[in-house]
Amino acid sequence: MIKIDNYSDIVGENVITSIYKKMRKLYGKHVLNINSTYIGGGVAEILSSLIPLMNDVGIDAGWRTVHGNVDFYGVTKKFHNALQGQAINFSQEKKNLYEQVNRRFSRYTHINDHDIVVIHDPQPLPLIQQYTKRQPWIWRCHIDLSAPNKDLWNYLKRFIIKYDMIIVSSEKYESKDLPMEYRIIPPAIDPLTDKNKQISDTIINKYLKKHDVPTDKPLITQISRFDKWKDPEGVVEVFRRVKDKCENCRLVLCGNMATDDPEGLRIFEKIMSKAKKMIDKKEIILLTVENSILVNALQRKSAVIIQKSLREGFGLTVTEGLWKERPVIASNVGGITLQIQDGENGYLLEPNDIDGYVDRTLEILKNPSLSQELGKKGKETVRKKFLITRILVDYLDLFNDISS
Amino acid sequence: MIKIDNYSDIVGENVITSIYKKMRKLYGKHVLNINSTYIGGGVAEILSSLIPLMNDVGIDAGWRTVHGNVDFYGVTKKFHNALQGQAINFSQEKKNLYEQVNRRFSRYTHINDHDIVVIHDPQPLPLIQQYTKRQPWIWRCHIDLSAPNKDLWNYLKRFIIKYDMIIVSSEKYESKDLPMEYRIIPPAIDPLTDKNKQISDTIINKYLKKHDVPTDKPLITQISRFDKWKDPEGVVEVFRRVKDKCENCRLVLCGNMATDDPEGLRIFEKIMSKAKKMIDKKEIILLTVENSILVNALQRKSAVIIQKSLREGFGLTVTEGLWKERPVIASNVGGITLQIQDGENGYLLEPNDIDGYVDRTLEILKNPSLSQELGKKGKETVRKKFLITRILVDYLDLFNDISS
Repeated sequence: MIKIDNYSDIVGENVITSIYKKMRKLYGKHVLNINSTYIGGGVAEILSSLIPLMNDVGIDAGWRTVHGNVDFYGVTKKFHNALQGQAINFSQEKKNLYEQVNRRFSRYTHINDHDIVVIHDPQPLPLIQQYTKRQPWIWRCHIDLSAPNKDLWNYLKRFIIKYDMIIVSSEKYESKDLPMEYRIIPPAIDPLTDKNKQISDTIINKYLKKHDVPTDKPLITQISRFDKWKDPEGVVEVFRRVKDKCENCRLVLCGNMATDDPEGLRIFEKIMSKAKKMIDKKEIILLTVENSILVNALQRKSAVIIQKSLREGFGLTVTEGLWKERPVIASNVGGITLQIQDGENGYLLEPNDIDGYVDRTLEILKNPSLSQELGKKGKETVRKKFLITRILVDYLDLFNDISS
Repeated sequence: MIKIDNYSDIVGENVITSIYKKMRKLYGKHVLNINSTYIGGGVAEILSSLIPLMNDVGIDAGWRTVHGNVDFYGVTKKFHNALQGQAINFSQEKKNLYEQVNRRFSRYTHINDHDIVVIHDPQPLPLIQQYTKRQPWIWRCHIDLSAPNKDLWNYLKRFIIKYDMIIVSSEKYESKDLPMEYRIIPPAIDPLTDKNKQISDTIINKYLKKHDVPTDKPLITQISRFDKWKDPEGVVEVFRRVKDKCENCRLVLCGNMATDDPEGLRIFEKIMSKAKKMIDKKEIILLTVENSILVNALQRKSAVIIQKSLREGFGLTVTEGLWKERPVIASNVGGITLQIQDGENGYLLEPNDIDGYVDRTLEILKNPSLSQELGKKGKETVRKKFLITRILVDYLDLFNDISS
């Protein structure tokens, strides 16, 4: 079971003590969280740790997921992409489905007796329209909002302005045209989950063997959903060029499919056909299996971890890589810039700087002591700023402020 | 939106009036429903109509779904099969996962302020162990419990006995070894959903064309998940023999995949390879698309509807077929025997009576007036006994009894 006391050795007793202090006026508060999925993707992962932790320290935190259908998730996936700047065919039909699913869900979701409501991401955003407000509502958006599609933003604003506060992952996502109260809460990882906990070399090797990942050559990995914003095709291109200069490596692309992401399969199949030869020769290994210990093992065994995102809310896989003391090369987009200081605890590059990615990868492959140094500093960065206990602290501060 | 008044024309004003009478002592009661999925499968369908209806008449009915993972649903699918009599490798590991998911879910599912809790099917059954009971708990089991696997039943009993009442779909599922209060509530269909509402011939033909179902020959259909208990392979065998005597027909097998059913894909692929030739020739059409209007269109266009289940909780697809005034040939298992009176409003056969299935299919194909007569009586059976408003009435009676 998830208990706050178990984090004491990792984050220090001072942090645990401060959490109990912040709880003094919050015991028994009823906080309702609503998002779109309880499995797959970074948001579900954070909530899976954060919500039990809130309950462990004394908040009655609930967690519900909107009851959508395939069409609804198709629409909200498009919204997600458009909020990150992509064009969208913004039809009345999409709006209708979006609002209708929320209206239906509201029919049997009774929230009068909650003290605070936290709505995560755009899927349940219109819910607020369905209730007579009797408590503060907070919109927690995990998406890169630095350049949202205008039409969509104008449409969503009618829901957003009803909220009392917006939480985003970086100051860059604050919108000038909304005179609202913003809070910055960068995401974080849970160091005690299967994906991040310490595991032995025996277990690492067992899992890699079980999933047919050869360990005879150094591994370059990107752990990310098969999604255009994660640019897996770009990673394949980088690897192609690295391979020209250094035979001694393999690429692993490992990505699960979120239940609210119908696009994933299509992109996966594109990679499959584009890189067929290298896949057949096992120079490139594609994994879609959903297994946290496998991801943990892959990250710990990686010689180089890449995160070549074109856009990124925060980049939790970067956090995970850093936590495992591995060298991470990543794009200078979204929250990644909060995590990596170029040349200090990893490398930052322009998303389309293929040459840069190739050079940095080769540099690390040839220099084990550089790799160790970057990794060590990376882990400290995460310990200080990006562990789940810090999110808990941020929420407790926010709940105290909004209740007083 | 789902409103009780919209059912008045179909079920009559007396039914609506009696519902309002039964509500008198129930206004504002907080009833929590918990099941395993909000999409796919008969239970999710019933709840999608029933829970908004409860809210419409004045009960604050909530609906949550247990937060399981792939492994959990793998285990509960095996439990489901074992409750229907199949053998199970009943390991401690399975029990642990089953209880652990429920324990975790209980951490953030707060139910103290609910007046009644209704738990649906085995997936969330152990939840009751996690709470100090402060209200009546009801276990609503939709499965055929006439011959459950002994080991599993003995294990599950420890949870079941904590409940105040068990609802099953037929008297046959009452267990002699549990001295508990049983209620019989057969399932039902919602006549106003996309799957069951009246649709025009234009729409029927449009949907069949869109999904490549030829309408030049009479259609024999089975609408059912690809699941061994639905015996789709047996249906293919029946069709093979029908085809030998009557060229002028096609078979359609149409089944969606429930999100809690990892077995579905495997069985689908088996059929694909076993009936490859007939599928290539379009004599057999397999559809896995999830579209309620398509199912509606298929049922309304069918010359013969088959439901060759080996086991069946109730058999909602039979109800749907009868409601569309079509002749239904089905196995005399589970709740199907409550719906069909052999030779009156359809045909009942032993599940393995392939010859019988072949003969009855040929008989109907050759005799349109027989087909019409059976269909008419079938629709009346459903109107009287198996529409969603009757379930609502049954629950209101139960809530009144358990609250008094």
